[in-house]
Amino acid sequence: MARDPKAIGVFDSGVGGLTVLARLAEQLPGESVIYLGDTARVPYGTKSAETVVRYARACAAFLCDKGIKLLVVACNTASAHALDILRTELDMPVVGVVEPGARAAIRCTRNKRVGVIGTRGTIQSDEYSRVIRSLDPAVRVFTKACPLFVPLAEEGWTDGDVPWGAAQVYLGELLACEVDTLVLGCTHYPLLRNVIGQVMGEGVALVDSAQATAAAVQETLAGIGMLRPERTGAFAQQRFFVTDAPESFARVGKRFLGRDIGAVEWVDF
Amino acid sequence: MARDPKAIGVFDSGVGGLTVLARLAEQLPGESVIYLGDTARVPYGTKSAETVVRYARACAAFLCDKGIKLLVVACNTASAHALDILRTELDMPVVGVVEPGARAAIRCTRNKRVGVIGTRGTIQSDEYSRVIRSLDPAVRVFTKACPLFVPLAEEGWTDGDVPWGAAQVYLGELLACEVDTLVLGCTHYPLLRNVIGQVMGEGVALVDSAQATAAAVQETLAGIGMLRPERTGAFAQQRFFVTDAPESFARVGKRFLGRDIGAVEWVDF
Repeated sequence: MARDPKAIGVFDSGVGGLTVLARLAEQLPGESVIYLGDTARVPYGTKSAETVVRYARACAAFLCDKGIKLLVVACNTASAHALDILRTELDMPVVGVVEPGARAAIRCTRNKRVGVIGTRGTIQSDEYSRVIRSLDPAVRVFTKACPLFVPLAEEGWTDGDVPWGAAQVYLGELLACEVDTLVLGCTHYPLLRNVIGQVMGEGVALVDSAQATAAAVQETLAGIGMLRPERTGAFAQQRFFVTDAPESFARVGKRFLGRDIGAVEWVDF
Repeated sequence: MARDPKAIGVFDSGVGGLTVLARLAEQLPGESVIYLGDTARVPYGTKSAETVVRYARACAAFLCDKGIKLLVVACNTASAHALDILRTELDMPVVGVVEPGARAAIRCTRNKRVGVIGTRGTIQSDEYSRVIRSLDPAVRVFTKACPLFVPLAEEGWTDGDVPWGAAQVYLGELLACEVDTLVLGCTHYPLLRNVIGQVMGEGVALVDSAQATAAAVQETLAGIGMLRPERTGAFAQQRFFVTDAPESFARVGKRFLGRDIGAVEWVDF
């Protein structure tokens, strides 16, 4: 018997959060998921905290209306700016991607020097540094905004001279800081993992918060007795909503999810 | 005596339209201008026609409320999708950037082979091809969407390996088409003029619709007797509004306008 047939709600500014959804589906195959990509307002990473909070509230309200049991903020910028606010305002568990990523980085580093890359909004919020320092004050955090990585990933330019050149410009100073761990602090960045890994070198571990976030969701649901057993997987469903351009979401999203997405529904709010 | 003290309204999805404003200020120094950058919803170039029309209507309504005498749609994507609709709905002249750019290209080409580059939205709309063909059916038009040029210009990466590499990927097929004229069909692209010019070679003329648009505004206002004489220039004012992040607009906009912007006001709609 399913413990709770309600779905998990996941939102992102666009397709990037599908990397989180992919890990959720692997780790929690019994759970249904409703995904919302706010493609009418994408990207969040270049916008102000106030505006991102406004958009995050609207996305959360849409998913809550669908009767979800837990909300995943699968966007680093929205997690950095809006997680505390959503946790205060919503009557359900809210899981972001920053804290799971920060915990994974702390587990990973040996020399206590961690790099974090993300959108301008995420880096300016300084949320990764704050969370990592609060968990382990001995860890030094070095951050760098890499605004071109999102459009490169969306364009599908994940290999070759252009992403390589961009990665060299952005990552040079983190290399000089001798970090041994680098947090991919944006859900788009796992698509550029090869190039980022080559520029950083083999000695630097790349932390993708998607896996850690899926684990945090599992832990949270288990903790409140709302986990749905795996054997009900046959009934688990995925639904996809976007605020603009469903066809484009399906096309680009395939690269992020690693498989066809199927039907994508357009919603306006 | 000023013939009409009302301002010209100009909107764009963000900072790009400032290249149009710069030409307007040069050519019509007697005119006041109210500029609106819809930075809360930027970019338009990746979004659907329906969504861009909705945003364009909202921007137009805001400027009309300010009592403007003419509206300039200083965004190629919004011009491509929404110009006809705004002309039908508004009780004032509306000037877009596509038709002036198309006319300039036709005047420029000798071999009747014109290239057009722009956002995915502008290129998919096929509006440049439609307008050019309607003005001169003998001209062949070759188009290419260059989605990374906008983030490159916003990031200030207008020279060096990365923009050079991107330009080579995007422009290769237009080179093969032997165009002698290339329309920079996005207001961000003039910032990449050097790199684009180097890749296309000296034999290809680059057409920037900003200058042509300013001329079209002058012609339109003169035609209806609403041009403000140059000698009142001392009283001409520029006001800047954005829907998000005024500081970032001022910082990035400086590169587009070629001078400090001054006060930028935040508006919500």
